[in-house]
Amino acid sequence: MSRITLAHANTIITSALEKGAELGLKPLSVAVLDPGGHLLAFQRQDGASTLRPEIATAKAAGALALGVSSRTIGDMAADRPSFIGSLGAIAPKGVLPAAGGVIVVGADGFPIGAVGITGDTSDNDELCALAGIAAAGLKPQE
Amino acid sequence: MSRITLAHANTIITSALEKGAELGLKPLSVAVLDPGGHLLAFQRQDGASTLRPEIATAKAAGALALGVSSRTIGDMAADRPSFIGSLGAIAPKGVLPAAGGVIVVGADGFPIGAVGITGDTSDNDELCALAGIAAAGLKPQE
Amino acid sequence: MSRITLAHANTIITSALEKGAELGLKPLSVAVLDPGGHLLAFQRQDGASTLRPEIATAKAAGALALGVSSRTIGDMAADRPSFIGSLGAIAPKGVLPAAGGVIVVGADGFPIGAVGITGDTSDNDELCALAGIAAAGLKPQE
Amino acid sequence: MSRITLAHANTIITSALEKGAELGLKPLSVAVLDPGGHLLAFQRQDGASTLRPEIATAKAAGALALGVSSRTIGDMAADRPSFIGSLGAIAPKGVLPAAGGVIVVGADGFPIGAVGITGDTSDNDELCALAGIAAAGLKPQE
Repeated sequence: MSRITLAHANTIITSALEKGAELGLKPLSVAVLDPGGHLLAFQRQDGASTLRPEIATAKAAGALALGVSSRTIGDMAADRPSFIGSLGAIAPKGVLPAAGGVIVVGADGFPIGAVGITGDTSDNDELCALAGIAAAGLKPQE
Repeated sequence: MSRITLAHANTIITSALEKGAELGLKPLSVAVLDPGGHLLAFQRQDGASTLRPEIATAKAAGALALGVSSRTIGDMAADRPSFIGSLGAIAPKGVLPAAGGVIVVGADGFPIGAVGITGDTSDNDELCALAGIAAAGLKPQE
Repeated sequence: MSRITLAHANTIITSALEKGAELGLKPLSVAVLDPGGHLLAFQRQDGASTLRPEIATAKAAGALALGVSSRTIGDMAADRPSFIGSLGAIAPKGVLPAAGGVIVVGADGFPIGAVGITGDTSDNDELCALAGIAAAGLKPQE
Repeated sequence: MSRITLAHANTIITSALEKGAELGLKPLSVAVLDPGGHLLAFQRQDGASTLRPEIATAKAAGALALGVSSRTIGDMAADRPSFIGSLGAIAPKGVLPAAGGVIVVGADGFPIGAVGITGDTSDNDELCALAGIAAAGLKPQE
């Protein structure tokens, strides 16, 4: 598996939103990016606020930017807030230090894309991202 | 009520400034935005400093961006400073973590706009925003 | 009809892509925005290049920014290139002067969103946008 | 007269909008800036599109930025498009090469602010700006 297709991306989003509905979460926004950080597909549920597309994208793009999940970026920001804060100025899509952004890897372990979700708690956002990735038969970066 | 008109916006601003005068507050700046975060009307009182238009706008635009008042964003920033700080880079009009930015909702509970005020204490700024919204016969988001 | 729902947006995209397939067009990217210019849904077909999300978004966001289709903005740019060129610096999502960005209006004639498509010729992009809007039971701005 | 007050700014806007109504123009957006290019007051009429606040502001701010009306900047752009085009990247509020942005001068001939209007033809926009300035008892830069 060397590439996330649009079909994969749509499955990830649909499954993530189903997971959110199953858990009774707030309206979610889900972005799927290619390994270069460019949007493949996105959906924002009714009632979600206006910056959610940028937040979902920044969780995923930031993960690809640093090579770790946005949860790990959140941990890094707790230790080194100025370092993470300084990245906003040089990362066109942002780097968002909160769980919900997960890198998807191919069979060789290299990133083939990323998923970013926002809307509920960061933990729940991430849980839905992982559910979406699994539903598409893909694997998150460990 | 599905739309804030310019007439509403002018009433909100005039009434907010009257409230400020009644309370003897410092010079205020008041922005009223449509639900997409675009300016409908703005007034800056004599003596207010130069960034006040951007601050008032960022309070209101940030509230719409995240779907909560700028007071709540202030609370979020106290808990998670790096998360809120990271939004500045991806929100063209900013996200300002201090009271004074209030979402206005329509009959169906969806945002129809927002008001942002700056100039005095954040608490007083918010109080004037609420007074303006009430004077226009509109409702703030709970 | 005062609001484009996510269900509408997904129908618009699916139908626009079906139209593209029917016509044998190159890989398309389709963005659907709310009336404030914020993304509701997006899909990029396999093989489309990296800036397509931004181009599709800029066609739709530019249309909402100026209140006319991106085709009309293209005509304006032919007459007044410096005027249209100057807008890029003040429009966070850009203003793109080429057909394919179409405003969707509600029963009262006000914008309720916009569709932006890129990938094939501008004329074909627009044709797919119109097909998508019609399939969702919505109306383009005349 | 060394300063445009908020009262002046409100009179300029109200009078400019009255002129527009008298002439049957499309919905207008009117910005009044202080001599540093910072917003004093703004109103956007119902039905005006989303980028109008930025366009009105850029007409006025660009005029102050270069010390000439935005009509003159339009003439400059016709002669030297790359020069005017390059300013967008360094002018935070933009430089807009089309009539409708007019500098207001004090008794000593120095700028005390500027008015920017957008919504109808550039000529009509400028005509309303001049009407507003005159109604406030102020003088445009010759």
